[in-house]
Amino acid sequence: MKLYTYFRSGAAFRVRIALNLKGIGYEPVFVHLAKGEHRASEYARVNPQALVPTLVLDDGTRLNQSLAIIEYLDEKYPQTPLLPKEPLGKARVRSLSGLIASEIHPLNNLRVLQHLKRALGQTQEQIDAWYRHWIADGLAKLEAELSSKNKCCFGDTPTLADCCLVPQIFGAKRYNSDLSPYPIATRVFEHCMKLDAFDRAQPSKQPDAE
Amino acid sequence: MKLYTYFRSGAAFRVRIALNLKGIGYEPVFVHLAKGEHRASEYARVNPQALVPTLVLDDGTRLNQSLAIIEYLDEKYPQTPLLPKEPLGKARVRSLSGLIASEIHPLNNLRVLQHLKRALGQTQEQIDAWYRHWIADGLAKLEAELSSKNKCCFGDTPTLADCCLVPQIFGAKRYNSDLSPYPIATRVFEHCMKLDAFDRAQPSKQPDAE
Repeated sequence: MKLYTYFRSGAAFRVRIALNLKGIGYEPVFVHLAKGEHRASEYARVNPQALVPTLVLDDGTRLNQSLAIIEYLDEKYPQTPLLPKEPLGKARVRSLSGLIASEIHPLNNLRVLQHLKRALGQTQEQIDAWYRHWIADGLAKLEAELSSKNKCCFGDTPTLADCCLVPQIFGAKRYNSDLSPYPIATRVFEHCMKLDAFDRAQPSKQPDAE
Repeated sequence: MKLYTYFRSGAAFRVRIALNLKGIGYEPVFVHLAKGEHRASEYARVNPQALVPTLVLDDGTRLNQSLAIIEYLDEKYPQTPLLPKEPLGKARVRSLSGLIASEIHPLNNLRVLQHLKRALGQTQEQIDAWYRHWIADGLAKLEAELSSKNKCCFGDTPTLADCCLVPQIFGAKRYNSDLSPYPIATRVFEHCMKLDAFDRAQPSKQPDAE
């Protein structure tokens, strides 16, 4: 299995965690987003969406979109399940994941920040404020959904939702977001980061880290 | 079943389509997003994410996040399946859905457009340009993924991906996006809109339409 990845991509980070949690080995292929390598015609043949991650199965089949990839892995490799068995639990985990993946992350990814700079003429300070605004907006919603009784986003073992939360908190820290209003999310983050699968997936431990 | 909805919400529109496709009746409860009713404390008790849609099951259980709701409905009401049976097909449909729900829609929803106006001082013309920029960026990616051999996004019957595509095209038309570069997506949209389940779910046919 090959994973097209970039150390700082939150979406690739999610899939790295899931692969680690399931104990699936993979060969990383590095796509330098900041240098625009994802927009090269060569990569368009790998992923027409021009985004990382892409997971290439051993038979050459290519999968993209991080949540779709993780759901696929969870079906094919049932060890260390990342979704509860019962439909209501699944809906809950998918909702928390969707909240991060559809309400926070898309507003703060690299191409949006670049667009704010290039097309809207925003300064770095204004871009940082934009980033923190959507982190605060989204994490407040997430915090309202989490229970302080759980070690993870749902129950005490990692799910798809934790694969989404941890990279998002990494982004928030990088932009110096104030995390004090989100004690439950912060505690879940700290719990997960003590687990080897999360720790090994973090940006600074990737071979392409700068 | 109760659905908290707003006629113009793309995410609520997705769930309305899914409920119609499955022939599930529901009682709509209207939340006026433009008036900020989703931010009222009353609605926070319904949905801590302060977003529509929310689906309330007959036993009072509340589900949120449109894709999580549709996946739940698909498991509990297997008639008219909205995801293929095989894992690779599922991954494909989820990827196309994720492309719309995580790469296009979040950049153009009401609270983002309001933030562009209030916090960034963008004019209506600049906001419209922002909207069309992300439509063009996202639909180009989607078009590259679709096959002209299919009537729908995946195969010839509607899936979760079509529940996402149709509301997105409605938004694009409302903002006068040029759709000519996306003939396959446009054809899929037109095919779906001939189906009663999609037609009845459209904004102008909702009781709260203005």
